[in-house]
Amino acid sequence: MNTERISRVTQNMAACGLKQIIVSNPASVFYLTGVWCEPFERMLALVVKADGEMKLFGNRLFALNGQTDVPLIEYDDTDDPVALLAANVDAGVIGIDKTWPSHFTIRLMEARGDVRPALGSQPVDDARLIKDAEELSLMRTSSKMNVEVCRRIGEALHEGCTEKEIQALYNRIALELGASGPAFTPLICFGKNGAEPHHDSDGTRLKPGDTVIMDVGLIFKRYCSDMTRTVHFGKPSAEQEKVHALVTAANRAGIAACRPGVKLKDIDRAARRVIEDAGYGPYFNHRTGHGIGLNEHEFPDVSSVSEVVARPGMIFSVEPGVYLPGRFGVRVEDLVAITEDGCEVLTW
Amino acid sequence: MNTERISRVTQNMAACGLKQIIVSNPASVFYLTGVWCEPFERMLALVVKADGEMKLFGNRLFALNGQTDVPLIEYDDTDDPVALLAANVDAGVIGIDKTWPSHFTIRLMEARGDVRPALGSQPVDDARLIKDAEELSLMRTSSKMNVEVCRRIGEALHEGCTEKEIQALYNRIALELGASGPAFTPLICFGKNGAEPHHDSDGTRLKPGDTVIMDVGLIFKRYCSDMTRTVHFGKPSAEQEKVHALVTAANRAGIAACRPGVKLKDIDRAARRVIEDAGYGPYFNHRTGHGIGLNEHEFPDVSSVSEVVARPGMIFSVEPGVYLPGRFGVRVEDLVAITEDGCEVLTW
Repeated sequence: MNTERISRVTQNMAACGLKQIIVSNPASVFYLTGVWCEPFERMLALVVKADGEMKLFGNRLFALNGQTDVPLIEYDDTDDPVALLAANVDAGVIGIDKTWPSHFTIRLMEARGDVRPALGSQPVDDARLIKDAEELSLMRTSSKMNVEVCRRIGEALHEGCTEKEIQALYNRIALELGASGPAFTPLICFGKNGAEPHHDSDGTRLKPGDTVIMDVGLIFKRYCSDMTRTVHFGKPSAEQEKVHALVTAANRAGIAACRPGVKLKDIDRAARRVIEDAGYGPYFNHRTGHGIGLNEHEFPDVSSVSEVVARPGMIFSVEPGVYLPGRFGVRVEDLVAITEDGCEVLTW
Repeated sequence: MNTERISRVTQNMAACGLKQIIVSNPASVFYLTGVWCEPFERMLALVVKADGEMKLFGNRLFALNGQTDVPLIEYDDTDDPVALLAANVDAGVIGIDKTWPSHFTIRLMEARGDVRPALGSQPVDDARLIKDAEELSLMRTSSKMNVEVCRRIGEALHEGCTEKEIQALYNRIALELGASGPAFTPLICFGKNGAEPHHDSDGTRLKPGDTVIMDVGLIFKRYCSDMTRTVHFGKPSAEQEKVHALVTAANRAGIAACRPGVKLKDIDRAARRVIEDAGYGPYFNHRTGHGIGLNEHEFPDVSSVSEVVARPGMIFSVEPGVYLPGRFGVRVEDLVAITEDGCEVLTW
């Protein structure tokens, strides 16, 4: 277990008025205990009390025994893990990790009528928010690797190749360069598919005149990268060039606003204003960015409603885009790490 | 929307005493509405009322508009989707889909003190449990394809190859044969890694004498396959042969027990008894199987505590295993579809 991190979490718990929390996100459990476990449908829960006492609940199949010095309570497929957990929490409010499957929360409430669930991720999210030197170094390497893989798939684009092929190529090169895998399914979009922000890559073939969005990330020693590059295959039209320059300017304006003390909503504003001023506001239909680290998307959002203030050690994406339905889309995404006096762009 | 399926769900709701449910599993939403949407951290919720009235809540980025005839309530990244949802549910008990992230449930409770969450997946799970003719046909094709990809990676095993390479090869061949992708990260385990049921494939190299577990599945037109084959690289020892024969016999005994009217716990028993009788009981440390369809793991479990009774149209895995820590593991997994008088094995 990592006592410095646990101490930050218990301080954050006190600040939130929480005396006990259940941590279930595998990345958060790893952050505090040093063991990474994907429980799939089975229950994984780390109970943290105000005094820093912890208990980890996991299926015996997870083979957690011996992997951590946190007290471990194991169960089998035929046991009721919620009953074991219910016997180990205190009456009153309990903070519940945001993504814990609801049936566990509901069954815990049924087993313990004297326990009241509340939102409970903030203490760990606020700790994970600030990356330490070792984390920053891993994030740098992860992004450096990602830049190289992205460069190579950009070079591999050729007439008639499919989105799926480029996606598979990304995955293969990422593994070859030493990544443990992609951080998410690479989003490779040709032509009008790029106007759907969450298009699933398919058999669409590349043709001259297409704008290509490559939104890719990989995992290196547990830490995620994420970046988006847009390129034009063949000669771009005047509008394609104009929109690309506009989105790049918005990305640069967002990055220029990144420094300690600035609210994330003002970073969103800085990027969004550039696009709005050019009349393309309605076509930039998502937040400007998101936190990243052990998860590819983590707290906080960089959106127009985020009151979070930038502090050294925070890492998030700046990814404005313009999507013209039925025609093409452009997104330019970089990761920034806030420094003492500005930011370091990890993806340049 | 699929009115026949919706009608089955509302009948199941009545049987459970639920007047309203929130469906959030993307596969379940697809099953009822015809649209598939991976919401990641954003909110996806389909409210189903006792009379079959439905409302679908999704972020505008999901581009659901025009894809379904279910009334749609869209929101943006800066809206509070739970507030929109809270305005559209009735006072009293509401069934919550099992994997809905807890923070949505907790925020809904905070917004609506007069609403009480209860376990709410059963009405849809009980409908999805019985596959119709079209689903069965897709499941057959998915498994047929999986058998072929598994055969090819088995042929590709050679001294010095790594687990990661075989994993990547599976993914590549699956795509080439027309799958939309793997149903889960292929579990390729060499030698002693096979004794960890959830080993993450790594750079371990294959050497003569290794037992190899290949637990693989793919997605074909949304439907998942899943199978496990164990092979020996080079000449197996007498014990490797014995354990392999034993696990195969347990798999066959489980399959032989599959027919309408049998409880799933008795199928578990039939397979487990073979392994226990041979003295290897403690080394078969997981359930015998799980349901499968639009999700790679779905209701119900085939475990020693499952009171579910087999009915025609149910599809699940039969996958006994024996794991000898530090030495090797053997698992043999097939998918069976219950028929009128027995079962059809999809993976033979």
